[in-house]
Amino acid sequence: MSDHHTYKKVELVGSSKTSIEDAISNALAEAAKSLKLMEWFEVVDTRGHIANGAVAHYQVTIKVGFRVANS
Amino acid sequence: MSDHHTYKKVELVGSSKTSIEDAISNALAEAAKSLKLMEWFEVVDTRGHIANGAVAHYQVTIKVGFRVANS
Amino acid sequence: MSDHHTYKKVELVGSSKTSIEDAISNALAEAAKSLKLMEWFEVVDTRGHIANGAVAHYQVTIKVGFRVANS
Amino acid sequence: MSDHHTYKKVELVGSSKTSIEDAISNALAEAAKSLKLMEWFEVVDTRGHIANGAVAHYQVTIKVGFRVANS
Amino acid sequence: MSDHHTYKKVELVGSSKTSIEDAISNALAEAAKSLKLMEWFEVVDTRGHIANGAVAHYQVTIKVGFRVANS
Amino acid sequence: MSDHHTYKKVELVGSSKTSIEDAISNALAEAAKSLKLMEWFEVVDTRGHIANGAVAHYQVTIKVGFRVANS
Amino acid sequence: MSDHHTYKKVELVGSSKTSIEDAISNALAEAAKSLKLMEWFEVVDTRGHIANGAVAHYQVTIKVGFRVANS
Amino acid sequence: MSDHHTYKKVELVGSSKTSIEDAISNALAEAAKSLKLMEWFEVVDTRGHIANGAVAHYQVTIKVGFRVANS
Amino acid sequence: MSDHHTYKKVELVGSSKTSIEDAISNALAEAAKSLKLMEWFEVVDTRGHIANGAVAHYQVTIKVGFRVANS
Amino acid sequence: MSDHHTYKKVELVGSSKTSIEDAISNALAEAAKSLKLMEWFEVVDTRGHIANGAVAHYQVTIKVGFRVANS
Amino acid sequence: MSDHHTYKKVELVGSSKTSIEDAISNALAEAAKSLKLMEWFEVVDTRGHIANGAVAHYQVTIKVGFRVANS
Amino acid sequence: MSDHHTYKKVELVGSSKTSIEDAISNALAEAAKSLKLMEWFEVVDTRGHIANGAVAHYQVTIKVGFRVANS
Repeated sequence: MSDHHTYKKVELVGSSKTSIEDAISNALAEAAKSLKLMEWFEVVDTRGHIANGAVAHYQVTIKVGFRVANS
Repeated sequence: MSDHHTYKKVELVGSSKTSIEDAISNALAEAAKSLKLMEWFEVVDTRGHIANGAVAHYQVTIKVGFRVANS
Repeated sequence: MSDHHTYKKVELVGSSKTSIEDAISNALAEAAKSLKLMEWFEVVDTRGHIANGAVAHYQVTIKVGFRVANS
Repeated sequence: MSDHHTYKKVELVGSSKTSIEDAISNALAEAAKSLKLMEWFEVVDTRGHIANGAVAHYQVTIKVGFRVANS
Repeated sequence: MSDHHTYKKVELVGSSKTSIEDAISNALAEAAKSLKLMEWFEVVDTRGHIANGAVAHYQVTIKVGFRVANS
Repeated sequence: MSDHHTYKKVELVGSSKTSIEDAISNALAEAAKSLKLMEWFEVVDTRGHIANGAVAHYQVTIKVGFRVANS
Repeated sequence: MSDHHTYKKVELVGSSKTSIEDAISNALAEAAKSLKLMEWFEVVDTRGHIANGAVAHYQVTIKVGFRVANS
Repeated sequence: MSDHHTYKKVELVGSSKTSIEDAISNALAEAAKSLKLMEWFEVVDTRGHIANGAVAHYQVTIKVGFRVANS
Repeated sequence: MSDHHTYKKVELVGSSKTSIEDAISNALAEAAKSLKLMEWFEVVDTRGHIANGAVAHYQVTIKVGFRVANS
Repeated sequence: MSDHHTYKKVELVGSSKTSIEDAISNALAEAAKSLKLMEWFEVVDTRGHIANGAVAHYQVTIKVGFRVANS
Repeated sequence: MSDHHTYKKVELVGSSKTSIEDAISNALAEAAKSLKLMEWFEVVDTRGHIANGAVAHYQVTIKVGFRVANS
Repeated sequence: MSDHHTYKKVELVGSSKTSIEDAISNALAEAAKSLKLMEWFEVVDTRGHIANGAVAHYQVTIKVGFRVANS
């Protein structure tokens, strides 16, 4: 077994009508369909769309770190 | 009709006793009184006041982008 | 009485299974055990651990400003 | 006459189908309708929309500095 | 009375032949003509013009935060 | 149909002998071969190679955001 | 005697009614009560409170570096 | 042959028990298994884990640029 | 022959009435009068002067990297 | 047992005549004298003193994160 | 006469026992010995040395822009 | 003797096949040929070229501060 690992980061934008946390969860749920070894996320940017003078969608950009398989 | 638009950004600080999302909503509700064409917001800074060792107010600085009328 | 005060900032990382706001509160509750004059906080970084393709813990780095006693 | 001036900056987003320079010009032309003493601009951010795999619009965020009248 | 306030920030450039502090004061004095509820400023940038190998004007860019009336 | 989407960003460097806009277009044209739902780009960095004291190639780093299929 | 030293940095906010330099001095004077081996400071942020349309207090955030005793 | 190339950047985190350079090499060795045209890397962040009061692993985040095949 | 080179960077501001690219070219043309081994440039800042509500000059700050002779 | 922890970060500058890694180790060794639960470090800044045209000391600023006891 | 100019920036550190403004002036006075066409300066960093718990020297890093002769 | 000094900073890129430290040393050795009063360096950027899936050269950008003679 190797004494070190290599990780890769991908940058995602999750959205949600309800909260910043929900936007993060939505992005992770989508990513989990193809990435098996996700270990951490970092919030890069928080923004959103406005409709009728109120928040329509939160849009949260995150970086997700996952271990490269067999590394 | 023009094939391009011009937008303006204003910088606001919303506050709330309950959550970051609520502070953003409060700022937008206030801005909506004078701005008609708000389209997006960007979170610039999140901070707050502390009272009795706990969060008293969240203070969230956002930039709000709105379309310049007739542009 | 002095006409000016001096403040100190400390950098903390709070964590929570439930929300960003709760992670901030947890950090402040811990800090309140030793710091008496906390006045404000600033969010520096938001990240978290992922387990089973979902958020396991939010980890929020904040700076806490408190007044130096007798300053 | 005063020996000093005060300037104000506003943040605008201009767009164009053709070039970055044209997006800047469009923002300035729109601003010139209400601001009389514009003196300089600073490019803050350059981005754009994509349609059919090509640039549909350049969107250039600029800050425009103008002298406050009678300052 | 509301339990929260909304603030707006404007970006100004003050100038002075004598000092950085004076440039800040000049910008605030100018802003005070139209803004009634200014509460804080943040220095964004300090620069200046040079004439004959010496400082001719300090130019200090500040953001001024003021409370939105009735918010 | 979902009420929210997830986007992914990839970072590309396009190059061109003629202009910054053309370097962006070249990167998008290349990306369009494998990405079907590209929606926006953000310019991250602009640089270039010099040959014989003049610009040989503009090299523009962009992030391209595209919607994750079925998200 | 060791051929290397270790330093620690603390982050302070000094305030003053009169000048940026005086705010720095006030923070150092306060820090000097408990820190014996201060060697340098770095200005991190300059801001202030406004009262009656003029500067009420300058608030200067600095980092102070001091040598760890016996290091 | 095209007179311009397109490059893509991926973000990796390499780790090593021994040095920063070794962490970079480990990340590149892992990436080389799937990327054939790697040309340059940029160090984004250097950090590490601590065990027993000493460095257990260096963790170096790099961006790797590689030429898109046939571009 | 050495197996490594040393480069130096200088910071220039080029200007042009017509385009950002032309401002870069003008700076390089001027630099080429005294620097013989220029290899790359990096755009640091893009701004400009406004006259009559339109761009009068683009001003582009670049860093130019050149190889130190005999290094 | 709590389901969450709180961490504190301190900022240190380690120095070494030999390498960047050694400067980090020296800072950690010094910190380990008083901090028992150090978990990670982040490199903030790398610089050094020059003597006789060569590196005399590397000076590496790191932030060290440690768990607050009983948190 | 050319319809455009080229400027060069140099980075200087001025010091003073008395004030930030004086440190800037000292750097400009020194630069004026060899540079004839200095037009503006930008403050990059403000720091200083501490002796006996008080400021010993302010050290202000500035960039100075000057016009390249005959450009 | 003056009670203050003026320093100048130059930006260099050193390269090395073996290590980050060696790249710094190579840049300083080259700079020492023409600069007599170098006092400190600051690492600005670390990157490198890749050949055959491994590091070919480390390229480290540093700023070198040196005292202006007779200042």
